[in-house]
Amino acid sequence: MPRFVKKHKHEIGLGPDDLKFRGEKKTDSVLLRVIDFDAENKEEKVIQSIEEVVPYKKKPSVTWLNIDGLHDEALMADVSKHFDLEKLILSNVMQTQARPTVQEYDNCIYISMKMLRQDEKTEKIHVENLSLVITETILISFQEFRGDVFDPVRERIRAQKKRIRNSGTDYLAFALLDVVIDNYIYIISLLGEKIEALEENLLQDPPQSIIDQINTYKRELNFLRKNINPAKEMILSLSKIESDLIEDDTYIHFKELLDNINHATESSDSYREILSDQLNIYHTTISSKLNDVMKFLTVFSVIFIPLTFIAGIYGTNFDVLPELHYKYSYFIMLGVMVVVALGMLKYFQKKKWL
Amino acid sequence: MPRFVKKHKHEIGLGPDDLKFRGEKKTDSVLLRVIDFDAENKEEKVIQSIEEVVPYKKKPSVTWLNIDGLHDEALMADVSKHFDLEKLILSNVMQTQARPTVQEYDNCIYISMKMLRQDEKTEKIHVENLSLVITETILISFQEFRGDVFDPVRERIRAQKKRIRNSGTDYLAFALLDVVIDNYIYIISLLGEKIEALEENLLQDPPQSIIDQINTYKRELNFLRKNINPAKEMILSLSKIESDLIEDDTYIHFKELLDNINHATESSDSYREILSDQLNIYHTTISSKLNDVMKFLTVFSVIFIPLTFIAGIYGTNFDVLPELHYKYSYFIMLGVMVVVALGMLKYFQKKKWL
Amino acid sequence: MPRFVKKHKHEIGLGPDDLKFRGEKKTDSVLLRVIDFDAENKEEKVIQSIEEVVPYKKKPSVTWLNIDGLHDEALMADVSKHFDLEKLILSNVMQTQARPTVQEYDNCIYISMKMLRQDEKTEKIHVENLSLVITETILISFQEFRGDVFDPVRERIRAQKKRIRNSGTDYLAFALLDVVIDNYIYIISLLGEKIEALEENLLQDPPQSIIDQINTYKRELNFLRKNINPAKEMILSLSKIESDLIEDDTYIHFKELLDNINHATESSDSYREILSDQLNIYHTTISSKLNDVMKFLTVFSVIFIPLTFIAGIYGTNFDVLPELHYKYSYFIMLGVMVVVALGMLKYFQKKKWL
Amino acid sequence: MPRFVKKHKHEIGLGPDDLKFRGEKKTDSVLLRVIDFDAENKEEKVIQSIEEVVPYKKKPSVTWLNIDGLHDEALMADVSKHFDLEKLILSNVMQTQARPTVQEYDNCIYISMKMLRQDEKTEKIHVENLSLVITETILISFQEFRGDVFDPVRERIRAQKKRIRNSGTDYLAFALLDVVIDNYIYIISLLGEKIEALEENLLQDPPQSIIDQINTYKRELNFLRKNINPAKEMILSLSKIESDLIEDDTYIHFKELLDNINHATESSDSYREILSDQLNIYHTTISSKLNDVMKFLTVFSVIFIPLTFIAGIYGTNFDVLPELHYKYSYFIMLGVMVVVALGMLKYFQKKKWL
Amino acid sequence: MPRFVKKHKHEIGLGPDDLKFRGEKKTDSVLLRVIDFDAENKEEKVIQSIEEVVPYKKKPSVTWLNIDGLHDEALMADVSKHFDLEKLILSNVMQTQARPTVQEYDNCIYISMKMLRQDEKTEKIHVENLSLVITETILISFQEFRGDVFDPVRERIRAQKKRIRNSGTDYLAFALLDVVIDNYIYIISLLGEKIEALEENLLQDPPQSIIDQINTYKRELNFLRKNINPAKEMILSLSKIESDLIEDDTYIHFKELLDNINHATESSDSYREILSDQLNIYHTTISSKLNDVMKFLTVFSVIFIPLTFIAGIYGTNFDVLPELHYKYSYFIMLGVMVVVALGMLKYFQKKKWL
Repeated sequence: MPRFVKKHKHEIGLGPDDLKFRGEKKTDSVLLRVIDFDAENKEEKVIQSIEEVVPYKKKPSVTWLNIDGLHDEALMADVSKHFDLEKLILSNVMQTQARPTVQEYDNCIYISMKMLRQDEKTEKIHVENLSLVITETILISFQEFRGDVFDPVRERIRAQKKRIRNSGTDYLAFALLDVVIDNYIYIISLLGEKIEALEENLLQDPPQSIIDQINTYKRELNFLRKNINPAKEMILSLSKIESDLIEDDTYIHFKELLDNINHATESSDSYREILSDQLNIYHTTISSKLNDVMKFLTVFSVIFIPLTFIAGIYGTNFDVLPELHYKYSYFIMLGVMVVVALGMLKYFQKKKWL
Repeated sequence: MPRFVKKHKHEIGLGPDDLKFRGEKKTDSVLLRVIDFDAENKEEKVIQSIEEVVPYKKKPSVTWLNIDGLHDEALMADVSKHFDLEKLILSNVMQTQARPTVQEYDNCIYISMKMLRQDEKTEKIHVENLSLVITETILISFQEFRGDVFDPVRERIRAQKKRIRNSGTDYLAFALLDVVIDNYIYIISLLGEKIEALEENLLQDPPQSIIDQINTYKRELNFLRKNINPAKEMILSLSKIESDLIEDDTYIHFKELLDNINHATESSDSYREILSDQLNIYHTTISSKLNDVMKFLTVFSVIFIPLTFIAGIYGTNFDVLPELHYKYSYFIMLGVMVVVALGMLKYFQKKKWL
Repeated sequence: MPRFVKKHKHEIGLGPDDLKFRGEKKTDSVLLRVIDFDAENKEEKVIQSIEEVVPYKKKPSVTWLNIDGLHDEALMADVSKHFDLEKLILSNVMQTQARPTVQEYDNCIYISMKMLRQDEKTEKIHVENLSLVITETILISFQEFRGDVFDPVRERIRAQKKRIRNSGTDYLAFALLDVVIDNYIYIISLLGEKIEALEENLLQDPPQSIIDQINTYKRELNFLRKNINPAKEMILSLSKIESDLIEDDTYIHFKELLDNINHATESSDSYREILSDQLNIYHTTISSKLNDVMKFLTVFSVIFIPLTFIAGIYGTNFDVLPELHYKYSYFIMLGVMVVVALGMLKYFQKKKWL
Repeated sequence: MPRFVKKHKHEIGLGPDDLKFRGEKKTDSVLLRVIDFDAENKEEKVIQSIEEVVPYKKKPSVTWLNIDGLHDEALMADVSKHFDLEKLILSNVMQTQARPTVQEYDNCIYISMKMLRQDEKTEKIHVENLSLVITETILISFQEFRGDVFDPVRERIRAQKKRIRNSGTDYLAFALLDVVIDNYIYIISLLGEKIEALEENLLQDPPQSIIDQINTYKRELNFLRKNINPAKEMILSLSKIESDLIEDDTYIHFKELLDNINHATESSDSYREILSDQLNIYHTTISSKLNDVMKFLTVFSVIFIPLTFIAGIYGTNFDVLPELHYKYSYFIMLGVMVVVALGMLKYFQKKKWL
Repeated sequence: MPRFVKKHKHEIGLGPDDLKFRGEKKTDSVLLRVIDFDAENKEEKVIQSIEEVVPYKKKPSVTWLNIDGLHDEALMADVSKHFDLEKLILSNVMQTQARPTVQEYDNCIYISMKMLRQDEKTEKIHVENLSLVITETILISFQEFRGDVFDPVRERIRAQKKRIRNSGTDYLAFALLDVVIDNYIYIISLLGEKIEALEENLLQDPPQSIIDQINTYKRELNFLRKNINPAKEMILSLSKIESDLIEDDTYIHFKELLDNINHATESSDSYREILSDQLNIYHTTISSKLNDVMKFLTVFSVIFIPLTFIAGIYGTNFDVLPELHYKYSYFIMLGVMVVVALGMLKYFQKKKWL
């Protein structure tokens, strides 16, 4: 399966309100977790069906419903029904290949973006679609499978930190997006660390394997960029949305998200350039080493060529070859050979070929 | 004929209301298909002349007239007359080389874009011009020849799915455009799959043929981009049009089209970069292999050069060549040769030339 | 003379209302042609002086005055006087090196752009400056020399086609611009055909001359782009102008011009990329062929090196060289040589060096 | 640690009002310096706690509080409390990895950007985050450690120069930003000087080390650009802000900052191109030198090859080899060899291979 | 000193109203020239002090004060005082490294841009800063040293050409800017001529020196672009300024400036591409020539290798080597050698290696 874009033939032409799961199923069961809180109280629980969370709709406190696993089409229909959400929203939630977007509806704001996660063993980067639906009192987040990315936000809610406990669903959404973008920067910095570590090896005696590493990093960075860059546009739209669901104070935080995502994309741009420079350095180093070897070998051969030729002349069997019969001929020949060899060495050194 | 732009001398200077077919004729007969539907009823039929569809103009139900084949100039004049469309529109419909565009008229909206289709045997991508004319109760679609791309939409209409049966011509137009763009993504993902499959072969022992494949994929991608990218601008214009023919609810779907076409172009950009990286990797692998071969061969030759020279010296026929007459000279010479050869091997290994 | 930008020292600092011809004189005589038409009547004639066309100013019919040849400064002064045009306009008309532009004046609109023409023999592309001045009843077009580019428009006027005969000077201007841009596309498609024809030769056995061809096409494309791209901006300005001289219906045609010029620039971009890919393919093919030759030759030499060395050893003249005196030594030596050669061949084949 | 982007896992998910220091601690103690001035009076002192500066809040004179060292979280909380600043601001101040930004609050403007400093010994460029908070009567500047960059501004304040002594906190902020950007240009010009100095060495006999230098400069320039370019956007936002805290006269200075930062980025772009050209020149020079060497050596070897072959023929031991027995054979052979060698030399010279 | 950006440490932190000369002093004395004119009268004189020009302030005629030499700080203070100009303006005038800009003040418009001049001997391009201050009746121009660039404008004033004599300071400013930009185009065309002249040499037998020329032209073009491109932005701002000092009629001329500067930048872009193509052609030509040489030499050597081997075999001294004793062995050997050599030649020719 291609990693950068996936589309199955049977997915073409599905209506925008068909609640069909389009993606890879990454978890078996669906987990529903609810946190309800206001400045004073906090309640956390795992629920079995959407009905359980309906009563919270009327409560003024903030309710965060987190759904891990997107393949249960009946559940999605329930969400649509109980929270009065357009089917189009749930249809989008279930399409994990979608592009980051923000859409404003009468009673909610729909946000989707990519979450990145680095596999600790293979060091490969995995991508997961995250959808947020902001309504007046309830925020619903949809993840492809259960992860620990949002734990810091849960901690902040539990720790009764003032700001998040005193704010609405819009601020909670910001906190989640902030974690996701912080994670982008963290993953870029992990990759960056490895890329910058290559530098030292490059200049001295680069092993063959370094080129595979550079290419691997390039591909990972490419993959990162493909997933991060579209989010920039989305965050920009978000910061310009005019909705009653977002309080004035929250806009400054959205602007901060924009700064952060820009920081992420600019850093990835820098590493892209660095990788491309590294490739060039590698090729220069390698080819300069090869040139040295070839030059040395060629010079070495060239020195022996006239010597062998001289020996060849005196290996001929002519009846009349006067030099053969002088007493010191052999020694003179050896002497001439030494002189020729030294002369050539001198010449090559003067020309800086050695 | 060039594949990327075509223009015949005789096409220059045709007036914008000359109903002349400009393009390659891809079908012989013209097929007219009508589907008329509202929430309750649905009627499908194949008709012989435009007159048969005129009565539907007055009916409030949605009528979809699909015309396969664009070369019948009389028919086009009929369409213009019976539906009161400006000749410019039909003239554009008949120019298959046109750029994707959206044009707003008093009584209709004209949309044109490219449809892509992959030939299942040759795996080559073919392009076809699609035109849509949205009027109040009738949507006319023009294709260069009969295809099965719109079958999923027909299925949705037949299946009495609520949304499309309850909506107007604008939503039907969206559904058709959506299928076309889904198809873009599908074709890119097919190409992407093949491109990503190259990766594995590249790093080990790339066959010569891989370079032809990369170049073929590059050309196909180039061709895709040339046809897909202009559609982005068109969809953007469409999503900003302010017309009574488009209901408010439909704009959010146009925004979705925009997300999808962006997804398509970004994916094609990613593959473009991947292909360019693959070319580099191929060249690096090939040249590094060649270097290894040449280095090995050169080192091999260089080791024999002094040995042959030594043998040459003792092949000379000097009267006085004392070494020739010692009993163990020959064996000593062989020994010296072994020492020289081993010494050079050692030196080359130390220098990492082997 | 440089082909891409020309400026003579004496042209610097000329005032914008100096009526000085700045350019190469491409025709000796100046030809003045007038077509006057409305829906019913049409009159064509060649005139000798500007005075003859003045009476048409008052007639409501559309008058097209075409001037071939720009170097007659007195004539230009006459045009300025009789049609009450600012001197700046005529000064611009006479500067053939100007950039495509559109300028709005109180009583007219001034448009200038480049016309391209392919020399049928040398296949070189020539450029010519075209200026249009749109006034209420008269359209004046200025060309550097007499050409046949506008003949299709003249044909349409003669043929009593309705649209152009019923419209004003703005529509006539559109018709002329349309022909010019159609011509751009035609010239790009001619070049494109030649470029795509290279492809086949490239992959098999590219002759040396192909590289010159690629470079020639590149330069021609460069030249095309330099002249076409600035027109895009001009057409965009034209489509946004708000002037009484342009009827509402004409704007949709200007938008069409914009689509066409975009089609032209995008096609030239595609060919640019194709040429750059072709250069790469050529280099790859050539260097891969060279590598094969060098590898073969090197392997061939390397096989003989140890054989020659063995023969060298038995060519030495040592008194004691036992192998020389065994009866089958020579044949054994030949056998050993065959074994060594075959062994090396085997080894090289296993390593895929042959 | 990577140099281009840093993010620790434990920093993910911190709330925007958590006053946590996020960065490298570059100084141990925190230094608080206050300058209070108006047109007539000026007072400078080092203070120990924020409380000491609170009384100045009410005074109409301009007070500049400079804080060197950002790690004291209690102090930051004090600043927030006493100057009534949102915690978000101080949280941003303590995040040294942030992107240059400008944020408008009800009672203040928050500005952050990067300060660059060249280490005089290692010539490496270091980066430091600078934050400014502009309130009505007090400007607070935050630096990571004590430096001398702002000394010229202090001098101007001391020297009783009119403008700065007569203006408000907005002008003081401009003066600080101006120094920072002047410093950018200075650092680019230092690097530029070194880059332009390379030129001369490049064309003659470039030493191997030059490539390392080019790569080092490239990396430094990359690092500069990464830190400078985002400031452009920030300054643009600043020049468009509409705030009571900024007097009308100050906007023209902000526009000047914009010109300066553009000058900086354009200069760095120029040097980037120069470096890339230099790399190409280096490679061309090197490869052209290598080609000359290899060609010479090859031609040299090739000349001896037929000579050695001729000698080989007359070294054979055939019973019947007539030439061996003529009296002048040997001398004829030598003569032929000379003729062959000279002929080949002539040929190679004619072909310009030597 | 670097050529692309210059900044001295002592220039950092100078206040925007410090009248300090920042740049290289290019002339010793300061020359003040005044031309005062209206439609009827014209007066030209050289003055010694600013006071002499003050009376013209009240006259409705247009006065052009041209100052050559910027280092006289007292004079600049005088200008500021007598014409009531903000010190910031004069401070900018004295900073010759500034970026082209346009600034609007209450009583004047300040414009600065670069003037280019080609040294006729060295053919190197020099840059000079030009500042214009447009007030109601007086235009002040500041140049770094006395040049002849503005002579054509002076001629036009003297020649009593109507337009410039009837217009205000804004039109005079346009005339000066027009000359500067015409000069840009002239200098680009001079360079362009040299660049296009390279073409012919490139394809046949490019001398080594051509690469230095290409690199020199590249650097000059780089330098041109660095100085010209920022002016584009400045002219755009100028054409959008809304000021009482600029008459409506003048805006169309500013738009013309914009067209001209765009023409300049697009031409320089074209030449940039041409140079880069030329570099590629050079490398291709050179490497293709080298390949031919190496291939020829290698094939030549390879043909002798088996021949020398055969001779080697019959040079061995085995007691039993039957072929040595046949009468025609030698001649057969020679024949075999000829056959082998011819066979190889044939093979290589068939393979197109020769």
